[in-house]
Amino acid sequence: MEYRGDAYRLLESRGAKVGDRIVVKTRDNEYRGILMPRYELADDTHLVIKLGNGYNIGVSIDRIVSIRLDERREDKEVVEARGEDKEGKGEEGERGRGGSVIERNSTRARLALVSTGGTIASRIDYRTGGVRAVLTAEELYSIVPELSSIAVIDAEVLMQEYSENLTPMHWSIMAEKVTEKIYKGYDGIVITHGTDTMHYTSSALSFALQDLPVPVVLVGAQRSSDRPSSDAATNLIGASLFAATADASGVFIAMHKGKSDDRVALHIGTRVRKNHTSSRDAFESIDIEPIAVVDIDSKRIEMLESDCNVRGRDKSRRPIVRSRFDEHVALIKFYPGFDPSMIEYLISKGYRGLVLEGTGLGHVSKRCFNAIKDAIDSKMLVCMTSQCIWGRLRMTVYETGRDLLSMGVVPLDMLPETALVKVMWVLANSSSMDEARSMLLSDIAMEFK
Amino acid sequence: MEYRGDAYRLLESRGAKVGDRIVVKTRDNEYRGILMPRYELADDTHLVIKLGNGYNIGVSIDRIVSIRLDERREDKEVVEARGEDKEGKGEEGERGRGGSVIERNSTRARLALVSTGGTIASRIDYRTGGVRAVLTAEELYSIVPELSSIAVIDAEVLMQEYSENLTPMHWSIMAEKVTEKIYKGYDGIVITHGTDTMHYTSSALSFALQDLPVPVVLVGAQRSSDRPSSDAATNLIGASLFAATADASGVFIAMHKGKSDDRVALHIGTRVRKNHTSSRDAFESIDIEPIAVVDIDSKRIEMLESDCNVRGRDKSRRPIVRSRFDEHVALIKFYPGFDPSMIEYLISKGYRGLVLEGTGLGHVSKRCFNAIKDAIDSKMLVCMTSQCIWGRLRMTVYETGRDLLSMGVVPLDMLPETALVKVMWVLANSSSMDEARSMLLSDIAMEFK
Repeated sequence: MEYRGDAYRLLESRGAKVGDRIVVKTRDNEYRGILMPRYELADDTHLVIKLGNGYNIGVSIDRIVSIRLDERREDKEVVEARGEDKEGKGEEGERGRGGSVIERNSTRARLALVSTGGTIASRIDYRTGGVRAVLTAEELYSIVPELSSIAVIDAEVLMQEYSENLTPMHWSIMAEKVTEKIYKGYDGIVITHGTDTMHYTSSALSFALQDLPVPVVLVGAQRSSDRPSSDAATNLIGASLFAATADASGVFIAMHKGKSDDRVALHIGTRVRKNHTSSRDAFESIDIEPIAVVDIDSKRIEMLESDCNVRGRDKSRRPIVRSRFDEHVALIKFYPGFDPSMIEYLISKGYRGLVLEGTGLGHVSKRCFNAIKDAIDSKMLVCMTSQCIWGRLRMTVYETGRDLLSMGVVPLDMLPETALVKVMWVLANSSSMDEARSMLLSDIAMEFK
Repeated sequence: MEYRGDAYRLLESRGAKVGDRIVVKTRDNEYRGILMPRYELADDTHLVIKLGNGYNIGVSIDRIVSIRLDERREDKEVVEARGEDKEGKGEEGERGRGGSVIERNSTRARLALVSTGGTIASRIDYRTGGVRAVLTAEELYSIVPELSSIAVIDAEVLMQEYSENLTPMHWSIMAEKVTEKIYKGYDGIVITHGTDTMHYTSSALSFALQDLPVPVVLVGAQRSSDRPSSDAATNLIGASLFAATADASGVFIAMHKGKSDDRVALHIGTRVRKNHTSSRDAFESIDIEPIAVVDIDSKRIEMLESDCNVRGRDKSRRPIVRSRFDEHVALIKFYPGFDPSMIEYLISKGYRGLVLEGTGLGHVSKRCFNAIKDAIDSKMLVCMTSQCIWGRLRMTVYETGRDLLSMGVVPLDMLPETALVKVMWVLANSSSMDEARSMLLSDIAMEFK
């Protein structure tokens, strides 16, 4: 990961090592930041510096006039909080629009950082031009040294999976690990996660872990941490600040907000979706605002007004842990030409739950009615959501919806992905159909729109 | 549909009938518009007036000071264009941002209005409080008399279905009907359609009908035409204006744009999606701008700048019609816990195509790899899209995507709904797997992002 060739000689002559804070002057500019590692086949004619806003910049060594060492990297396994808060002890700052602004707390919070894989912990494989997952807790530190100024952080590698490979079993493992961390007394838990299915996992943990005493924040990156414009550092800083200091509890996702470089949004775990394949602000709260925004530069958390009642933190609270999921649940997106025999197939396979992603206000073709009746007759929980993504489910407006309701289809006015996870969870944690239906229709983790 | 009780007596005393243009004065206001019908169990204490902007308002008869008859309704089966264009003959007006503004053409265009069902042609059933489809061409006219000032319109009821009940067979019927109308020489075709699957149909017609000489515009409504705030009239007016006068050809969807009352957006048929269950601006172009916006008040069409090359109209052009679809194609949305045996089931049922709605840049779990290999070995076309909805598909970035590509999965960088329809169409219109793959990867109707 070190430099070589001309770049190496230049750095060695100045006594600068990867991880040090340095000031680099070129003919036109001055860059102040942390010297980042270079990988394998990278050229030897550029230095990479992580700037204060979290972004990396490559500087051609031809253009460098001087390099000055600003601060030596601290090499500790568990990096302790460096420097006290400048603004005083936990005072509440100025009010933002509609919400309160919380200054970074000066007490040394303790965070558990649990990594599960994904781009946030990956780097470019220069041999293939693609990205592969390579992760140790130490590597994460070397990439985001700023974390040490936020809290005392204990890192642990729980698994190393692209998130498309995660299953409900992995959700259970994560829920158990979070429980363990909570009983160890951490002030917050940050879970690094691949973005592809992060919103499924955040729903799963929201149902599995109720009455949480502290925040559990899932965080990912859309661009790997060794790329210029990577969002890994800002997202991780935002997640850690919120987990360490926000007066909130529950399960959240922290990811870039909008096109700005230095704002990270906190989304409620059951109300968020990956809506873009590649942009840094791919995650969006659906039909509500994010619960908070972290300004990375000022390290401020702005709590936004919300219809959702996020409870404050309370370390004396004991979580309710129900971490099992029943995989005999299918999500089926309806479309013109959909073959109802798919539903009959699920019946024959012993499926216990079916979430339909219907059209509009919650509809499927009348061609499906017989198969749906068969499913309900065979004690399958059949639920309806909408593929529109936005807007309320309203099955009483049209004949089709009313017909489906009268057959016993359960309207789940929530995101299809959240509904799938909830049905999996309800079926694993109820002892009768009546109890399951009642749990399905109860608000458990702010999942209803 | 007529009034009764006090309302009836008031109207009779003034000689005003449903469909007439009237001026109603209350103590505070003056309303100028068309007297709308009232239905069945409605109260007898309000008149309903359609205002110039297309919206209905209910006026309590207690508040009415005077009613004046402005213009008698014209009772014609085929209403002819009334009044000439005020702004002159087809002059090009002022330029809008980035595009050109086209004044309403003064020549009498001929439009074919084909109705297939849905909310735009439905009304509230006051006995149930819901909505049911009741449609005749005459009713449509009585609801939107303004259509007569746009063009000579011939209306035809092709089918009466909620759009969730439509199948690829119905797409074929619509394509054949449009072809018939084109050969009759119409200047444009407007198809009223339920909104739930309107974007599937617009994709289907885009592939089935190439080299169209004139615009084919699908239009729906999110609120039935007898409700205050119905968008039926504005959408229909916007669709008709565009179909009659815009210098464009191809298949489009016309629906409300944004929160404004009087703007209708024109979307390219393969690039649009219903993204909200209930709002009037539920339809959105994905990753591009709409191709045009119609201002209903001024009757102006503003063509927007676009990456897509929409061809102008040319009535001498002969369309290529390939209206068949193969229903042995499934769309499967991937999720954590997805059971790959669903794919094996499709193989056993003789499916010929599978569109996966994967995660992120185009991924599914490695648990699915064997089933996908089996599908490809059995000559099934297996294609990938993303459930993110927005953003490009990029299967070369991560190992998972590269593995899937090397197995033979076809990356379709388009909306999942469009991809499903395209595979159905390609399989019905190709004679070999090679030809099918080549058609899949060719740009046919601006479907690629």
